[in-house]
Parts: sequence; C-alpha cells; structure tokens
Amino acid sequence: MKDIHYFDNAATTRISAAALESYTKSCLNHPGNPSAAYRLGHEAKDVLEDCRRRAAAVLSVQPGQLVFTSGATESIGIVMSSLLWAKAPGQVLISSLEHEAVAAWAPMLKEKGWDVVTVRAKKGLVSPEALEAEITAKTRLVAVMAVSNSLGTIQDTKALSEVVRRKEAEYGRPITFLSDSVQALGKTGLDLSLVDAASFSAHKVHGPRGVGLLYLKKGQLQPLSHGGGQERGLRPGTENLAGIEAFTTALEELDEEDARRIRSYSDEVREAIKGSKVKALVPADQCSGHILALSTPLPSEVAVRMLQDRGVLVSSGSACSNNARGKAEAVLRASGFAEAAGNMIRVSFSRDNDEDDIRALIEALRSF
Amino acid sequence: MKDIHYFDNAATTRISAAALESYTKSCLNHPGNPSAAYRLGHEAKDVLEDCRRRAAAVLSVQPGQLVFTSGATESIGIVMSSLLWAKAPGQVLISSLEHEAVAAWAPMLKEKGWDVVTVRAKKGLVSPEALEAEITAKTRLVAVMAVSNSLGTIQDTKALSEVVRRKEAEYGRPITFLSDSVQALGKTGLDLSLVDAASFSAHKVHGPRGVGLLYLKKGQLQPLSHGGGQERGLRPGTENLAGIEAFTTALEELDEEDARRIRSYSDEVREAIKGSKVKALVPADQCSGHILALSTPLPSEVAVRMLQDRGVLVSSGSACSNNARGKAEAVLRASGFAEAAGNMIRVSFSRDNDEDDIRALIEALRSF
Repeated sequence: MKDIHYFDNAATTRISAAALESYTKSCLNHPGNPSAAYRLGHEAKDVLEDCRRRAAAVLSVQPGQLVFTSGATESIGIVMSSLLWAKAPGQVLISSLEHEAVAAWAPMLKEKGWDVVTVRAKKGLVSPEALEAEITAKTRLVAVMAVSNSLGTIQDTKALSEVVRRKEAEYGRPITFLSDSVQALGKTGLDLSLVDAASFSAHKVHGPRGVGLLYLKKGQLQPLSHGGGQERGLRPGTENLAGIEAFTTALEELDEEDARRIRSYSDEVREAIKGSKVKALVPADQCSGHILALSTPLPSEVAVRMLQDRGVLVSSGSACSNNARGKAEAVLRASGFAEAAGNMIRVSFSRDNDEDDIRALIEALRSF
Repeated sequence: MKDIHYFDNAATTRISAAALESYTKSCLNHPGNPSAAYRLGHEAKDVLEDCRRRAAAVLSVQPGQLVFTSGATESIGIVMSSLLWAKAPGQVLISSLEHEAVAAWAPMLKEKGWDVVTVRAKKGLVSPEALEAEITAKTRLVAVMAVSNSLGTIQDTKALSEVVRRKEAEYGRPITFLSDSVQALGKTGLDLSLVDAASFSAHKVHGPRGVGLLYLKKGQLQPLSHGGGQERGLRPGTENLAGIEAFTTALEELDEEDARRIRSYSDEVREAIKGSKVKALVPADQCSGHILALSTPLPSEVAVRMLQDRGVLVSSGSACSNNARGKAEAVLRASGFAEAAGNMIRVSFSRDNDEDDIRALIEALRSF
C-alpha cells in the first residue's frame, strides 16, 4: 500500500516518463535556437513545426491555429489583453465558473471602460438561455470554460456556441468565444471548431510545467507582449523547444481507455459514499469523470487535513491559486452551491491513480 | 576535431548537465503544486522559495525582489505593460540598442498616447549626456540594456543611473530605470541596486528555455496577465518549479574563471584577425568578452553561410528573432555603424567553447 494517494490531479499531474524523456532528449539533440539561420537552427525549427502538426492532429485542428505558450494563464492573457487594443471598449461576458486566469481580467477591463457581466452558472452549468439573455450589440467576448475546475461540470459548448453565432449574425459583429479547455483536454470530447479561442496547459495532462497552448480559430489578435516575432508575433521569446516536445509527447499519450478508467473510479467512489455523510455536489452525468466535488460535514480545511493524515491528498478549492479556498468558495456561491461552499472538497483523478488509491480514498471518506 | 563549432551563444546556450539533472530530479521529487495546501505542496513551495534565495544570493539582491517568469521577454513585458495602467500617458526613453522585447513596445505605447523617444547609442554606447538631454518632467521609464546583444558594448549603467536619479530629484517624480541584463549575466559585473528593474533569461546562461527572472527593486507594478496570484500577482500561473530549479543551478554554476577564459578567446580572435579583411566593430575595452561583432567583406548572410560550410556557426544578427538580420541591421544603423550594417556578423562565446573551436574560427575568418 502506498503512503500517499494523490487526488489533486486537476491542480497538477506528475510528468510522464515519456514526456520527461522527450524533454531530456530535446535538450541534448536540439540545442539550436529555432530562429537561427544555420542548420542547427533549421533543425530545431523543423522539430518545432513537427510538434505543432502532431499537437494539431491530437486536437483535430490546423497546425496554423496553434500557438505554443508558457501555460494556460498566458494563453488566456493573449486573448483577454487583445481587448485593450480595441478602438472602443465594449462588453465582455464571463461565466461565474471561470478560473482566476480569466476572472482576474474583469477589474482590469472595467478600469479601461469595459462593461464586464458575469453569467451565472446555476448548479455549475451555464444555460444557453442565460447566456443569450446577456448578449448585446456591444458584446465582444464570451468566456465559458469547457469543464469547471471546481465542480467538474461539462458545459454545453455546442449550444452556447450556437447562441454566440446566432447573436453574431443578428448584430453583424464578431464575438470571440473563449473556451478555457484546460480541464477538458483528454477527459471529455473537444470540438474546437465550435469556439474561437481555447487554452490548454501541459502540466494538467502529465506534461511539463511552463508550457501551454492557445488555439485560435482564425484572424489575428494583438499580442500581449512583444519581442522577436516568434509564434506569429503572439508569443515572442525563444521557443521552449524541450518543453514543447515534452508537451507534444504528453498529448499523444492521451488515451480514451485512461479516461474511461478514471470515470470508473469516480463512479466507484460515488457509489461507495451513498449513505455516508459525504455527498457529491453534481450528478455524474453532468461531470467530467476526473473531478468529483464533494460536500463534507466539516469545514473544507479540516476535511483536507483529516484526509491528509490518512495519506489522501485532495484540494479544498481550485488549488491552482494562492488563495484556493476563497476563490473556489466564490465560484461555488455564484453557482448556486452557497450552502456547501465552506464544506466542499475536490477530489481529482488521473491515470496515475490505481485501485489501491481508490480503496484508501473510500475508506477515508466513509470515516467522516 | 569537432564537426560543429558553435559561436551563437548569445542566441542560446546548451543546457548544462547539472541544470538538466536539476530539472529531472525536480520533476521526480517535487511533483506537487506549490500553491497546494497539503505537505506535497508545502514542500514544493519551500523548494521554490529556496531557489529564490539562492538566485538572490547570486545576483546580490533580496529574494523578495525577484519574480520567476517564462523568460526575459515576459520579464520586460511585465514592466512595459504596467505603463498601460498609468493614470495618463507620459514619455518613455528607449535606447537604440534595445532588443525587440523592449523595442516592440514602442508602437503599442504610442497607440496609447505615450511619447516614445529613441536615445541613440553612438558607436554602441548610450552617453549619460545623450540620456540627460532627453529626460523631461514627463519621463516615466528609461530602458537602456546592460550589454548590447548585437554589439557586446557594456553600457555605463552607473553613470546613466546617476542621471536618472538626479532628474527624478529635479522633477520630483519617479522614473523607472529598466536594464535588460540578459547578456550581462555571468559575463560582466552587475550592480542591480543602480536600476529599478532588470530582466534575465535562463537559456542564455546554460539554463533551460522558458524560464527567466525579473528583478524589481521596490514597489509594485500592475501585472501583465492575471490568474492565481503566484509570484506576488506579477506572474500568475502554476510555477514551473523544475525549470526554476534548473535555472537556479545554472546561476550557481556561473564562474568568473569561465568569464575570463571567454574573454581570452575573444582577445585571441581580435589579435589573430589583425591585418585580415575582417574587423572588430567595437574596441575590446568597451565590450563584454562573449560578444564579438565583426564586419566582413561580404554580405552578412553570405559570410554566415561560408562559415557554416566550415562548421563554424555564427549569427548575422541578434538571432533571437524571426527576422534577425533586419533587426540587427536597424540597431547598427541607429548606433552609428551604418556602413557595416549589411556586412556584420556576431560571434558569441560560452564556456562550452574550447581552443579547438577558436582555432577553427580564426582559420575561417582569415579565409575571407
């Protein structure tokens, strides 16, 4: 039996052996700067473009639609900051579920004259009707994440996209649909043709930290930062080739069989806690299998600490922020889970979990 | 004799064995998210803060003055974009030597009403008098890099800082002195107490790609992007701990003895090309030892290709951009080297070079 049972995979996953090997090999075999004019540089550039093609194949998009970044926060920042260069401020719709990487732009945009409206995700789901009710002729961007990092709820991106496209046609102005897809990647089906922009993080799918992707369907955004013109000018700075190769390897390791096994784990836990003091916040059919939001009879931190004493590591919140609990609570309150907000824990699975982990988790949850 | 003699170390260096080992060990030993509330997270956080202390010791600054970033471009972007949140636009002074990571902000700032003035670096040096002549009551930021990536010239940061501080006192308003120090790190003495902000890149000093540092003397800038509040809110996103550990290792490997050996190499080359058709653009006593800008009798690309045929890799420009030659040429023209701009090559050394490399380089240069 293991000492530690890690169930905070929505915060970060362990880099896979293959991804780490890619990183190391890339450092040793492709040391050139991809922008350099000699052979060593061309080789590095070729590897970079090969990674882009491979990543595009995994995501079923065109290579030219992908920009490698330093992570999802930067991917989102490239999209959100592009608004600062608009001729005049307009309106932005942000779902109440959004990660801080999106939500923190609200005060900044407001300061620059933008109207920022929160679209409430009742019980963790943004309804097409709620979205439609808020879109106006001034709406320039809609941000609804694909899978909630706090609750695991899968948004109906298709229905939401139809609303956005219909309203675009009605008002005759483009509306950028940003779908933060960090928690969807490898877990649920993704149809990126439905959205205009999507963000991804390598370290949430057993890739390296400090690497991400931005999908941009078409058109050109004004870049967030500036420099050598790399990545179509959207993400300047010497390309992190080793990180990109490692991420690409991690993308190619994504496996539907793993997603099914993860789903079976969360189903097993849901079944096992029936009748206990721990309750699932959202029904299984509305959720990604890898995130299980639970209410406990104890304050979140106490529950997290009690589980830790049994070697079971879970999160009290989104856990990818310095004030995770406060932010997760805010998301929960805004999403109609006010009563559970202070008692919630998030259990998140990955393919690294095994039956031994699940047994330890169930035993610990039943002890509440 | 080696097949390849790599002299584009100002573009990128090979990651050191120790830095790569740090990266791998960190991935394996510290898989937790530094923001997570359990032990695995606390351990990762402790390692992160230990890295910050060790980096601060190398740079002779306080740990609280360092922000880990995804690279120098982002470090610079955090400083430059903070201007967008100023109450009213003012004036920015940018030296004609600046890397695109700084210079590309000029059109963006102009669009937002800022007055952007280029301070010409005659023969690659910004004189304190030239700087003083341009500072007005509206000046909010002065950007003069510590060592030119194109020419290798070492700026008199002390004298320039004195001008900035005197003008600050005269006008009773703070002026941010940004010193892009990417090419100075490990090569020349650095006194960061003279400046307000400085940018560093790991991969230029045998660290990993995708990692950098921002030094901020005091005060708080408005962040460039937004998210989980990591790195004092200035650089949100899950910390790239493995990259940070690898960079810290690379910083601690910096050695004055290596800097002296590199200097001896460039001195040897300068001596050997006397009487040949190749000329050094800037005197040795004005330059960092690791960058040797040379004029050749041929157009830059032709010279680069001829050298490549002999296994000698040099750059036709700054080489960390997608249009390296054009940008290097622009810097040269603005810095009083118009006649040499189209014929210039940059030879840049690192501790990985050896006498065998130097012999091959000298032989190749004499063949022109």
